[in-house]
Amino acid sequence: MLIDGLQCGEFDRNAFTTLRQGGLTCVTVTCGFWEDAVETMEIIAQWRDLVRENSDVASIALTVDDIEQANRAGKLAIVLGSQNTNLLNGHIRFVELFADMGLRVIQLTYNNQNSLAGSCYEQEDSGLARFGREAIREMNAVGVLVDLSHVGNRSTREAIEHSLKPVAITHANADSLFSHKRNKSDDVLRALRDNGGVIGCASYRNITGDHYCASIDNWCEMVARTVDIVGIDHVGIGTDRSHNHVKKHYDWMRMGRWTRHVDYGAGSVNRPGKVPPADWFQDNESIGLIPAGLARAGFNQEEVDKITHRNWLRVYGETFAQPA
Amino acid sequence: MLIDGLQCGEFDRNAFTTLRQGGLTCVTVTCGFWEDAVETMEIIAQWRDLVRENSDVASIALTVDDIEQANRAGKLAIVLGSQNTNLLNGHIRFVELFADMGLRVIQLTYNNQNSLAGSCYEQEDSGLARFGREAIREMNAVGVLVDLSHVGNRSTREAIEHSLKPVAITHANADSLFSHKRNKSDDVLRALRDNGGVIGCASYRNITGDHYCASIDNWCEMVARTVDIVGIDHVGIGTDRSHNHVKKHYDWMRMGRWTRHVDYGAGSVNRPGKVPPADWFQDNESIGLIPAGLARAGFNQEEVDKITHRNWLRVYGETFAQPA
Repeated sequence: MLIDGLQCGEFDRNAFTTLRQGGLTCVTVTCGFWEDAVETMEIIAQWRDLVRENSDVASIALTVDDIEQANRAGKLAIVLGSQNTNLLNGHIRFVELFADMGLRVIQLTYNNQNSLAGSCYEQEDSGLARFGREAIREMNAVGVLVDLSHVGNRSTREAIEHSLKPVAITHANADSLFSHKRNKSDDVLRALRDNGGVIGCASYRNITGDHYCASIDNWCEMVARTVDIVGIDHVGIGTDRSHNHVKKHYDWMRMGRWTRHVDYGAGSVNRPGKVPPADWFQDNESIGLIPAGLARAGFNQEEVDKITHRNWLRVYGETFAQPA
Repeated sequence: MLIDGLQCGEFDRNAFTTLRQGGLTCVTVTCGFWEDAVETMEIIAQWRDLVRENSDVASIALTVDDIEQANRAGKLAIVLGSQNTNLLNGHIRFVELFADMGLRVIQLTYNNQNSLAGSCYEQEDSGLARFGREAIREMNAVGVLVDLSHVGNRSTREAIEHSLKPVAITHANADSLFSHKRNKSDDVLRALRDNGGVIGCASYRNITGDHYCASIDNWCEMVARTVDIVGIDHVGIGTDRSHNHVKKHYDWMRMGRWTRHVDYGAGSVNRPGKVPPADWFQDNESIGLIPAGLARAGFNQEEVDKITHRNWLRVYGETFAQPA
């Protein structure tokens, strides 16, 4: 099995089939960045339609059982996630309703501070705010995995401390391996480890760097170094791969509706637009290069299994709601 | 003329007439605490109906001219304000649309941190966030007065620095006179003065204290001490008086939809519910005690005029949009 903790973009049948051909078993997709409650409901509804129309190759997974069943059936399991909490519209009780609608992963903040926490791109990270404390406990209670990928380092630390269950950094890298605002300091990663959580190593060029993107072996070297920091039980895959993204999608992700000006997100004035995927990950099928790459990096089969799927399955099992 | 920079609650004809009998010329009312865009539109629409139904005694003011015209006609001028920015739903462009709907005052945060800034009740104040910087400039451009009353001290300072126009603390007191999270430190008040802004002195017991609530002369002594801090050109009235509030309103203001638990807002476990108005302000008409009280506190007529209305009119004139 092979699990990717985060991808985004405009999925289609081709994405499902090519990822599955590469050996991918399960992927958490992005049901929104800035969208409010009703807009997110529409995205979830569209996901249901898309998966229904492609039910021979994909299925929505609510539980670890669902992921395993999809795998046995040769289908790609889709976990529904959100990269922001605007979908709550400030309602603590909406966490449960979105869990009922199938959402299993929610990131506390995207690129901006909100009423829950500080973001990695803000000048100052407030730490966990009052609504953030409430929302984490609610997510713990109703079965939604807390994602801290774009959250500021201080808020990430405080969220880890406050959560009663393991949390995830679904798509980021260690800042000590590639320095970027989106990446996490070693002390945060160790706190994640102590909480029982998992970091999904990313291959998105802006936060991975050209060196680790140059070959599958380079990238697996980065994964191995991440294991050195947090241990074999706390590293997974979270490529942050995007599908069919064009300029309007980047504008939406970066500027949303909050600014009248240009914002580069994870990019910069020198790298303003779409960046190429990692050299080794030009096609969806190439995700299948990862297990052998990890073996070449020195991991035995049990360790490869942990990184490729068992760590994610453990955290999902400890956090995802079980339907009644 | 007598202007109150902030009141809240369920206004009715009786509130309009009794406040006007007390000599009140203009009041900024509260069109929401946690309400989103559509909910705030409904509140604004309800205000239009209420004022239309009572057009013999009240009118909505969009400009200083409107306030003066209402005064000449013996009517109470209503300025529409919001105590939070949830009405933007994260849309920078909604500032202009709400200005078109008549809103003239927007507070950056209510009791919780949001995507604009930190609140006075958060453990940590982030300072002005990315969206906050954008929103202040947009409010400057489209003619909405920035209100910082419930905003944290650090965010208040940064908002004052960032704003190209005078800002207001419509309803708070000096923390050095009565210590409370809702009140402002002297350095913040001096920054407000340097920016050309105004603080509206409050009479809400939780943030004013029993001593300054005990008599009109005690309260005017507090106003005089506030003038000692920021100068005669920067102090106004912002009573924070509430109308027809019962438990459900306090629950809404304090808990909104963000928590499943009890929150006391400006109160405390020892003062959990509604507190009595200041001893001297039991009836709406008693707002008329203020001018004579200020004179007894030692202010000459020109100074009394500044505190009761001229300072507010100056800031409103410098910030309120002029309809096309």
